[in-house]
Amino acid sequence: MTVRPFSQPLEGIIPPLATPLLDRDTLDVPGLERLVERAINGGVAGLFVLGTTGEGPHLSYRLRRELITHACRFARQRVPVLVGVTDTSVVELLGVSRHAAEVGAQGLVLAPPYYLFVGQPEFQEYLSRVVPELPLPVFLYNFPALTKVVYEMDTVKRMLDQPNVAGMKDSSGNMTYFHRLVAAAKPRPDWTLVIGPEELLEDAIFAGGHGGVNGGANLFPELYVALHRAAKAGDHARVRLLKSVVMDVSENIYHVGRHESSIIKGIKCGLRCLGVCDDFMTEPFNRFREPERTRVAQLVERIQDRLKTVL
Amino acid sequence: MTVRPFSQPLEGIIPPLATPLLDRDTLDVPGLERLVERAINGGVAGLFVLGTTGEGPHLSYRLRRELITHACRFARQRVPVLVGVTDTSVVELLGVSRHAAEVGAQGLVLAPPYYLFVGQPEFQEYLSRVVPELPLPVFLYNFPALTKVVYEMDTVKRMLDQPNVAGMKDSSGNMTYFHRLVAAAKPRPDWTLVIGPEELLEDAIFAGGHGGVNGGANLFPELYVALHRAAKAGDHARVRLLKSVVMDVSENIYHVGRHESSIIKGIKCGLRCLGVCDDFMTEPFNRFREPERTRVAQLVERIQDRLKTVL
Amino acid sequence: MTVRPFSQPLEGIIPPLATPLLDRDTLDVPGLERLVERAINGGVAGLFVLGTTGEGPHLSYRLRRELITHACRFARQRVPVLVGVTDTSVVELLGVSRHAAEVGAQGLVLAPPYYLFVGQPEFQEYLSRVVPELPLPVFLYNFPALTKVVYEMDTVKRMLDQPNVAGMKDSSGNMTYFHRLVAAAKPRPDWTLVIGPEELLEDAIFAGGHGGVNGGANLFPELYVALHRAAKAGDHARVRLLKSVVMDVSENIYHVGRHESSIIKGIKCGLRCLGVCDDFMTEPFNRFREPERTRVAQLVERIQDRLKTVL
Amino acid sequence: MTVRPFSQPLEGIIPPLATPLLDRDTLDVPGLERLVERAINGGVAGLFVLGTTGEGPHLSYRLRRELITHACRFARQRVPVLVGVTDTSVVELLGVSRHAAEVGAQGLVLAPPYYLFVGQPEFQEYLSRVVPELPLPVFLYNFPALTKVVYEMDTVKRMLDQPNVAGMKDSSGNMTYFHRLVAAAKPRPDWTLVIGPEELLEDAIFAGGHGGVNGGANLFPELYVALHRAAKAGDHARVRLLKSVVMDVSENIYHVGRHESSIIKGIKCGLRCLGVCDDFMTEPFNRFREPERTRVAQLVERIQDRLKTVL
Repeated sequence: MTVRPFSQPLEGIIPPLATPLLDRDTLDVPGLERLVERAINGGVAGLFVLGTTGEGPHLSYRLRRELITHACRFARQRVPVLVGVTDTSVVELLGVSRHAAEVGAQGLVLAPPYYLFVGQPEFQEYLSRVVPELPLPVFLYNFPALTKVVYEMDTVKRMLDQPNVAGMKDSSGNMTYFHRLVAAAKPRPDWTLVIGPEELLEDAIFAGGHGGVNGGANLFPELYVALHRAAKAGDHARVRLLKSVVMDVSENIYHVGRHESSIIKGIKCGLRCLGVCDDFMTEPFNRFREPERTRVAQLVERIQDRLKTVL
Repeated sequence: MTVRPFSQPLEGIIPPLATPLLDRDTLDVPGLERLVERAINGGVAGLFVLGTTGEGPHLSYRLRRELITHACRFARQRVPVLVGVTDTSVVELLGVSRHAAEVGAQGLVLAPPYYLFVGQPEFQEYLSRVVPELPLPVFLYNFPALTKVVYEMDTVKRMLDQPNVAGMKDSSGNMTYFHRLVAAAKPRPDWTLVIGPEELLEDAIFAGGHGGVNGGANLFPELYVALHRAAKAGDHARVRLLKSVVMDVSENIYHVGRHESSIIKGIKCGLRCLGVCDDFMTEPFNRFREPERTRVAQLVERIQDRLKTVL
Repeated sequence: MTVRPFSQPLEGIIPPLATPLLDRDTLDVPGLERLVERAINGGVAGLFVLGTTGEGPHLSYRLRRELITHACRFARQRVPVLVGVTDTSVVELLGVSRHAAEVGAQGLVLAPPYYLFVGQPEFQEYLSRVVPELPLPVFLYNFPALTKVVYEMDTVKRMLDQPNVAGMKDSSGNMTYFHRLVAAAKPRPDWTLVIGPEELLEDAIFAGGHGGVNGGANLFPELYVALHRAAKAGDHARVRLLKSVVMDVSENIYHVGRHESSIIKGIKCGLRCLGVCDDFMTEPFNRFREPERTRVAQLVERIQDRLKTVL
Repeated sequence: MTVRPFSQPLEGIIPPLATPLLDRDTLDVPGLERLVERAINGGVAGLFVLGTTGEGPHLSYRLRRELITHACRFARQRVPVLVGVTDTSVVELLGVSRHAAEVGAQGLVLAPPYYLFVGQPEFQEYLSRVVPELPLPVFLYNFPALTKVVYEMDTVKRMLDQPNVAGMKDSSGNMTYFHRLVAAAKPRPDWTLVIGPEELLEDAIFAGGHGGVNGGANLFPELYVALHRAAKAGDHARVRLLKSVVMDVSENIYHVGRHESSIIKGIKCGLRCLGVCDDFMTEPFNRFREPERTRVAQLVERIQDRLKTVL
């Protein structure tokens, strides 16, 4: 399939889309369409499917392919669709990647294989073998808390020579790493450098990064888009105002549950409260029960009220 | 397929079989047959395929199914075949499990889903939903260093009530955990309690455990079988003698490479030195190069010499 | 002061004595005397003061010196007194060590300095400079969970050449480490190899170790002494019987509180229940409150009842 | 001693002073005077002695007191002197604190006691008992990588009510934590919020923080002072220029050695290259040897050249 190339670096907000589900292996297709529309109408620069927020590794391969197909169809090339293809199995990884290329996705997002520990030289060998086989531009995905393996700076520097590597999504939460990344990537001004944790969005922009892959942009895309713009413009007063709402989302909606999964549960529950899609979650997680749902609904409403005054 | 039930608890050595490969997605079928024969002739009590040593999570699902089929065929019900089905995706997990049941495997081995962090109550819910759907007896697999999630004692105790849970393989390396496990499992004398790290095999037997799932038993099944028997018999002098050879394997063959993968690389390389199968490894790993291979060959020969005097 | 040399290796139980306190900086001297008598009457092989259980790093240096003096006086050379001297400051470490030598202690226990991370080559240099300055035999103390630095096997092997290093106390909880230690220490048959976690006492003896530095021996010295003897004798039936009581202490008395400090709190509270000494704890900890105290009292009584039947 | 109160919040750079030493227990007094003058002439807002960079926990208590006395004497109240008093022993902590108050220090810096794990409720109790006993304003010091205990947000919020708590130094390296801290500290506009890692200095200022406690300010105080000012002024172009020099220091001078100690070794070695003081380090560390020293000298010279063009 022929797709329009996207301008590089990609600047702005690229929400890691939640995956609307009806049950364990059934995609909520209309829900996905509403979610895609909401994001694009909110001004996002791209869509990232099958990431952590999208429960990617927890879905069947069949459903992953179906999701990619529909997401590309709904996006209609208004913004590029990036696909999380991280896998412990390189054969499955390549299969999903080829499918993504065939149905019109525009980039792949690749974290280290996440079961066994891989030494950095082994990981470099892995990348030098696998990356050239990938049929689309590749965004490296650094998330050592989940994958146990970090993209060390030396590894990043080697990737500068790979023409089909297009940048990095850093979810380490380590701003020192991000500063080092910006410095290291100087020779590739086309590289897209985006940050995962939304609490660090403006830090990343001030540091020379291009945007954020922020889970909260599923719920309130305009908020993150506005914060990105304010930071780009160096408008510190507006950054502080918008940031206080971002922290409200983060400190409240993401802390309704007791476990670390409360972030993705909170996002999916919030989407239901907003009427976007169902909040079903596949194993190993479970959607919030009624008391948590009520609490999320209240919080979502409060944030919406605040957004009326700040946007 | 009708299979002979295995006696419970399962006592002895259950090698976590390496997966002989010709390339990334091609099984070395004759190599697998030789490996299975070597183990059964060595006196093992069962076979465990698609574990960590078997590069399970790194193989395609197609190859995983093919491997299960052949392993069951080669085992000819002389010993039970246990299949590692741990997966981040429950749909894939169930598919592999059903295949295993259809082709004559006799047990499933289940570690926690290993991408996102799962809180213990969430994990308990996961188990209570998934375990009853599994078509074969289930061995819990505790390996928190790789999965980030531990089977806490409270979770183990809840599993005592699940009739199709048949025991646990503990690879935590934490003998205090194993002692607690033995105490907790008292109400289920049919439970099989086996230990992963071969350096702890006799400790586990002395503690009341039933055996080991030890990688080195791919190479020298008789050694581990003999150590198991000596420990069962309380023959401390013989335990000390055999243990010194086990430590020789562990301190030397497993330390040829620099990375944590040197254990599974050393085993696979040793199998090649012994003429059992090729040493090809799929991504993210790579077989040893010539200097390491020469070193492993020397070590394997030395261990074989020592075995002549102690067995 | 002239002290009788102790036979090496030191075989048996060496309780890490709790430090009886009346307040933040006042030693409960009669309580200490009762504690020492209880341990020696219980058949211990030595006394270890100012360890983790003894709140060593939390006491003033003045009180540490006072405690060493009294402990040596009360021990009356019936068993050797070993003194924990681990310190972030080498000047203070040497001061306490000299005091210990002057008042008749017979050994020093040395863990890595525990504030900044120290690389292993740096740690080896540290040991090679500091150990020769120490005026008494030194027992290395491996407790990486608290010190962040491990005595790697290579470092242990270098210490074999230091004549005044007398062995190691391993509190890593890692039995594989202990097996490697036993193998590495072969050239020094005089080295004492003892284990910290009481849940691993018989494992350590079976592995070729000499004893345990077990917190529970403050409360019930006879129990641990009996378990040590049974393991030495290879009497597995008796080991299993006594071990079940050790696990009862460990699973219950050490789990009354919610935090990791519940072990040392439980021991100190149990000593009060037994009438040995007050349960005051210095900062950063606090003794148990009434509900926990009542629970500990019940548990101590139950264990005492069980001991009547097994000892 | 009467000291001039300092304005709160304290804005600017507060270097964590290295401790110039002639040997293990001898202060390099003239070196300290030069170091203090260099910092004050460079425009710093305060001095922090006995921190991590100052090898605080590795010094004898006698030397710590001597250092505090001299530092206050040399500072002559031109800027406040803050003293690291973190200790595993509360009695020693109080002794050093009282000495600091007597000789004219103006603040104390308090991290959690760093040997045993302390649960957060236990830590809160500790703080509520110890902080009111401290004779000077207290800056909380968050450095969980070294102390194992974090100042959780709930604990920070409780400290807002303690009148003699004056702020926090955050060395967690976690900017999300810092953003949460700024939000939580809103009710105390007098609180000083400063960041440890110099790579995050401008992020902290943009986030609403007041300054940095940056090790590199021992070497080049003007650089960090200038970066602080540029960030305060929202001058992004100048921030980027100065930041590139800060990253040069961080990526190069701090990476001459192999171990984590290379930061404090690099700083101390750099001070010698600059003629400020000797580079002797007390145990467990050791100064750089000749090849590393030559390398540091080159790097220091290069940075000095760059500073001529940017300052």
